[in-house]
Amino acid sequence: MKILITGGGGFVGARLARSLLARGCLSNRSLSQLVLADQVAPPADLIADTRVQARVGTLLDQCAALRDESFDGVFHLASAVSGECELDFDLGLRSNLDSTRALLDALRARVAQGDAPPRLVFSSSVAVYGPDAAVPMPAVVSDTTLPTPQTSYGMHKLVCEHLVADYTRKGYVDGRCARLMTVTVRPGKPNGAASSFFSGIIREPLAGVESVCPVGPEVAHPVSSPQRTVEGLIAVFEASRQAYGGRTALNLPALNVTVAQMLAALESVAGPAVRSRVRFERDERVAGIVANWPTGARADRAAALGLLPEASFEDIIRQYIADCAANPAALKGLNS
Amino acid sequence: MKILITGGGGFVGARLARSLLARGCLSNRSLSQLVLADQVAPPADLIADTRVQARVGTLLDQCAALRDESFDGVFHLASAVSGECELDFDLGLRSNLDSTRALLDALRARVAQGDAPPRLVFSSSVAVYGPDAAVPMPAVVSDTTLPTPQTSYGMHKLVCEHLVADYTRKGYVDGRCARLMTVTVRPGKPNGAASSFFSGIIREPLAGVESVCPVGPEVAHPVSSPQRTVEGLIAVFEASRQAYGGRTALNLPALNVTVAQMLAALESVAGPAVRSRVRFERDERVAGIVANWPTGARADRAAALGLLPEASFEDIIRQYIADCAANPAALKGLNS
Repeated sequence: MKILITGGGGFVGARLARSLLARGCLSNRSLSQLVLADQVAPPADLIADTRVQARVGTLLDQCAALRDESFDGVFHLASAVSGECELDFDLGLRSNLDSTRALLDALRARVAQGDAPPRLVFSSSVAVYGPDAAVPMPAVVSDTTLPTPQTSYGMHKLVCEHLVADYTRKGYVDGRCARLMTVTVRPGKPNGAASSFFSGIIREPLAGVESVCPVGPEVAHPVSSPQRTVEGLIAVFEASRQAYGGRTALNLPALNVTVAQMLAALESVAGPAVRSRVRFERDERVAGIVANWPTGARADRAAALGLLPEASFEDIIRQYIADCAANPAALKGLNS
Repeated sequence: MKILITGGGGFVGARLARSLLARGCLSNRSLSQLVLADQVAPPADLIADTRVQARVGTLLDQCAALRDESFDGVFHLASAVSGECELDFDLGLRSNLDSTRALLDALRARVAQGDAPPRLVFSSSVAVYGPDAAVPMPAVVSDTTLPTPQTSYGMHKLVCEHLVADYTRKGYVDGRCARLMTVTVRPGKPNGAASSFFSGIIREPLAGVESVCPVGPEVAHPVSSPQRTVEGLIAVFEASRQAYGGRTALNLPALNVTVAQMLAALESVAGPAVRSRVRFERDERVAGIVANWPTGARADRAAALGLLPEASFEDIIRQYIADCAANPAALKGLNS
């Protein structure tokens, strides 16, 4: 079985790759080749695996060559993030809309040449939801809430969901769209996503670094750990069409928490000294974007697939600490 | 005031053009120039008006030149229709998605050069709605019903709604999206739309021609007359942003009727001999598409703008008969 992960050099993509390689199979078939396409090279441990092939470059440029190659499955994670898209409208259209269309057309070209429609999981986002003057957003969104995106990123994700649904209806791919919750705790540096602080306020204090929270402690948000997110993507890939149900996107499981609850969990797991490294300083740009996001999410279709959120945010922090076992610098603040 | 109508050579576009020329103004400003862009030339009466400029060619080809021209307002009606899009996937993507994107980018380029964001009305469609295994469709759809399109045409319309909403949010256009109900009675020949028979079963018998209805008499559908449709587009253009409300699309008013009610109205207005020229012969392709359309629609936001549907289908037939006054052949069956 030959699988493509777009965005395979990114955090979620690389973690998904590791999970697939560790399993060695997908949908009861042996994983023989894993192609990781990204603008950046994947981590060294992935490149070292003989089943892995890394392709570095923009997805849009790579799609022409994909017409000459068969894949059994695709995880399409590559995306410009919300902050980037707000700052550079054309970059967002190119990276998110044009690339997805080119990918779908490359897969369709293979089907026209006799390939079976490849199974495809598109990573959409909770950012498709937002409040509109004509359509109030419920506090907790569900699989059937009307999405009215309030960022370009959210619009791109929603548009791509509908492209995937129509290419699926036509038999060009066997597509499924899973809306990711905000993934936390992400390692490394802050990225351009407006949601970046949902990781920063945990990651930086654990590393012994001060962190600024750009929104108030009352802000609530649906989050998920990296591991549950990856498990969700795999489960959606492996689900039968009947179990997946319809062609509309589904929400992956969410743990609905406030910033205050996240920080209380941090104190509970890591102690008051770590917690004290977070201070509040409102950033109007970020706060404005986040104010338009839902404060919680339900994931009924995912639950029917057996997917559940973490039991507590403490569990999410403990997962991050366990992930950092080989990287003492990331936990310098915990032990000081 | 300089206005562009894409699809200005088509039936709704030409009727809209006539209405605007007859009014002589829009949003309390005098109409000085009306550009009609279409693949076909507009009718002779429109070309004869000195305010009209016809541009014949595909919209996609015309959009580059639109970057050098200022418009105060745009009615974007150009579209490949549902039947065409099901038969030619690439044509649909090009005509409906790529053209709308190119149009929006041309308007945005003007704003970048200092133009005020032009007001734009995009004609979306009731075809955005459909049943999905995961999201049952209500019998009567409303402004807030979750659209899950079941045709490429419906997908294109929904995607363009969200493009217009995001370009509007960014200040690149002042966009509004109005979902047209099925417009009937259309004059002329059947077109490639799966909904074409909703006009054919009235138009052909009135012209003395046999007509085949490809779906059963129990099929219900939301329809609107050409005149109410045009009035709706103008009202949506003229509405303040506050009155329009939000950035999501709204439904134009619908008269919800069954095929049986349409034929009873035909008999009531035109007599049993005319009615008897319609026979039922199921067409699986058309019936399959129509089965996924809503059987009725509400239009609460349009009603708040003062827009209401016709009182009866008899009124719609009488409007068509009045429109045909100058064309006796169209009513040959009525007087025979």
